[in-house]
Amino acid sequence: MTDTANRTVESLLSSRAQRIGGGRLGNPRASANLISFVAGFPDPGSLPKRDITEATRVALERDGEWALQYGAGRGYPDLVRELLTKLKRDQGIEAGEENVLITAGAGQALGLICEALCDPGDVILSEEPTWSGAVHAFRRVAAEVVPVPLDAEGTDTAALEATLARLAAAGRAPKLLYMIPTFQNPTGVTTTLARREQIIALSRQYGFFIVEDDAYFDLRFEGARVPTLYSLAPDRVAYLGTFSKIMAAGMRLGWIVASPELIAACAAFKSEGGTSAFAGAVAAAFCSSGTLVEHIGELKSLYHRRRDVMLQTLAETMPEGVRWSRPEGGFFIWLTLPDGVDAAAMAEKAQERGMQYLPGTACHFGGRGQQTIRLSYSFADDEQIRQGIAILAGLIREELPVAAG
Amino acid sequence: MTDTANRTVESLLSSRAQRIGGGRLGNPRASANLISFVAGFPDPGSLPKRDITEATRVALERDGEWALQYGAGRGYPDLVRELLTKLKRDQGIEAGEENVLITAGAGQALGLICEALCDPGDVILSEEPTWSGAVHAFRRVAAEVVPVPLDAEGTDTAALEATLARLAAAGRAPKLLYMIPTFQNPTGVTTTLARREQIIALSRQYGFFIVEDDAYFDLRFEGARVPTLYSLAPDRVAYLGTFSKIMAAGMRLGWIVASPELIAACAAFKSEGGTSAFAGAVAAAFCSSGTLVEHIGELKSLYHRRRDVMLQTLAETMPEGVRWSRPEGGFFIWLTLPDGVDAAAMAEKAQERGMQYLPGTACHFGGRGQQTIRLSYSFADDEQIRQGIAILAGLIREELPVAAG
Repeated sequence: MTDTANRTVESLLSSRAQRIGGGRLGNPRASANLISFVAGFPDPGSLPKRDITEATRVALERDGEWALQYGAGRGYPDLVRELLTKLKRDQGIEAGEENVLITAGAGQALGLICEALCDPGDVILSEEPTWSGAVHAFRRVAAEVVPVPLDAEGTDTAALEATLARLAAAGRAPKLLYMIPTFQNPTGVTTTLARREQIIALSRQYGFFIVEDDAYFDLRFEGARVPTLYSLAPDRVAYLGTFSKIMAAGMRLGWIVASPELIAACAAFKSEGGTSAFAGAVAAAFCSSGTLVEHIGELKSLYHRRRDVMLQTLAETMPEGVRWSRPEGGFFIWLTLPDGVDAAAMAEKAQERGMQYLPGTACHFGGRGQQTIRLSYSFADDEQIRQGIAILAGLIREELPVAAG
Repeated sequence: MTDTANRTVESLLSSRAQRIGGGRLGNPRASANLISFVAGFPDPGSLPKRDITEATRVALERDGEWALQYGAGRGYPDLVRELLTKLKRDQGIEAGEENVLITAGAGQALGLICEALCDPGDVILSEEPTWSGAVHAFRRVAAEVVPVPLDAEGTDTAALEATLARLAAAGRAPKLLYMIPTFQNPTGVTTTLARREQIIALSRQYGFFIVEDDAYFDLRFEGARVPTLYSLAPDRVAYLGTFSKIMAAGMRLGWIVASPELIAACAAFKSEGGTSAFAGAVAAAFCSSGTLVEHIGELKSLYHRRRDVMLQTLAETMPEGVRWSRPEGGFFIWLTLPDGVDAAAMAEKAQERGMQYLPGTACHFGGRGQQTIRLSYSFADDEQIRQGIAILAGLIREELPVAAG
């Protein structure tokens, strides 16, 4: 027997696997009895069951032999075309087929870009707080994350510039900046046009690449659209989006728009080959029938109302010292608690009382953000929002004397 | 300006991305006018369009709110249950939900296992020739591949043992052995039970893990089933499978059956979260209606006939000196050409004459296998098989004098 005999799987794990730990194997239904503001899940009642059934019938009748076959590397061709039409119409993005890769959601899109660009130890600049999935994506490639703060105008460009200068002085050149410029996850903030232009200028000056995650672009209820960074500087930006929020998350369809070179490099890391031709064909039929445009319109009024219900209930119930953002679109409100109240520690009590939120620590690198909470108004209905926020307000009130003591 | 100013994407690529090159962005339809024996594509006419449409209707009516929502980490719960029933009934595999991860096809399954187990430079043992997708998967994680040959009884265990001893003497312990024990891709050979038992014993002795890719298990037309390695030694094996060959490749659904520890480690690398709940719900409805069992029965007679047509045409048309395998199931026949005939060089001429095959070099590591060809009998119809093989035979005949000269 050698000294490696009978090594168990645990002892065989790669160093990356050991570092990142196990995956999330949970079932979202397991906590279906709680009022949940945790996840960026679309409203369950709005999911277009009948339209997807009809789109499936149309797609398989029209092109079943290819919709059920191994697919094209960049995605189902009709979906690529429908997406290009949509991006031009809504996002002001002019791109060709060579610029598109259909992915299994924006999560995979970000994962692929990280693999294509980052070696272990490479520097990634990221807004902080940010999407918790991005925190995991950066960990998977063992990148060193340098956080950039946000303020009411979005990514803090003064802080970004100072960070870039500091890194350059240390001989370090970041590979990319990850940002969610529209209705940022989790803060709800939108980065202004002036800031976007500054960021592009810095990208040219310091040679880093911009990853623009625009998952919530279509869900604007108020205010004027701000041009996408991609439309301002297609040579410096990879534009990520998803059908998860505007069609159906269960279809796992997202996209990257970028240079043909980056698209090819990302595709090489897609171990499953082309994204599901089946889902792609169904989504293409859904788009081509005009159902997508109609559906987005319905979603905007729905989430607008939900946001208003949550903002109003927050105003009515929260104790003094609690602050929150007022997003013009998207799914999230960001809460900052008074000094000393620990949102992560409070989460268990909240669940005992029947509600769930996302502790802000999940949106930070290295355990920061203990006083922050992300509230999603997309999943719970109006009445649940009123009840859940009241429960949370009561809980914070109880924690306050301890915090003040 | 810094010296990194305006760095382009090409100059920002990770070292892995530079090494593996761009992804396959091609569209399989582009060569739809050729007689194709290239890919392991299921027969287009057999793809169950109407049954999938009906399964979609049932799935979305039954559980649309969850089928269209972000899914469970290990996969759509009903599909996990249907799969466990199927594995017990057909494969003789007893496993629980904790042992299953639904993946985007067997390709992603292998990709995740490689990431969970392999650091750059780690040794992977692999049958050679093998599935071309595995060649790419090992390259993605920058593993060092040590090939193990096959013979008529499957993986050559004497060669495997010698290789293990040689590696151990050099202080190297392979992480895993990748094998396709049933109707191997590309050779069509099935590893015998005695060999499987030897491999498991070697796995315990040398402490490596076995990845059993069993994509073709259900498509046996002749001979007796051989027990899966997983059923013989669940503690030493990850069992990979796919619905691509028996339901619809376009749904991108496969699985890993393994220890809960390995399942968790693999799930952590799934950047898209749980595999499509939509596809999972549709597949579960397809299984629960009994359609899967019926469909597999139809596929077996179809591919049995196709294999027979190809074998017969090979016997009728091929010049002396060409040898081929006689698989008892699966999709592939493996051709070995006489000395000096270069199958890779001949591929272009074949396309000009209207047919395509996979040069065996794609199934080897480091450009070996120039005299070999993989022929898939799954995609082309009977008449195309007769025509395509006749074209190929003519071409080989033309190459022979040059080879003999």
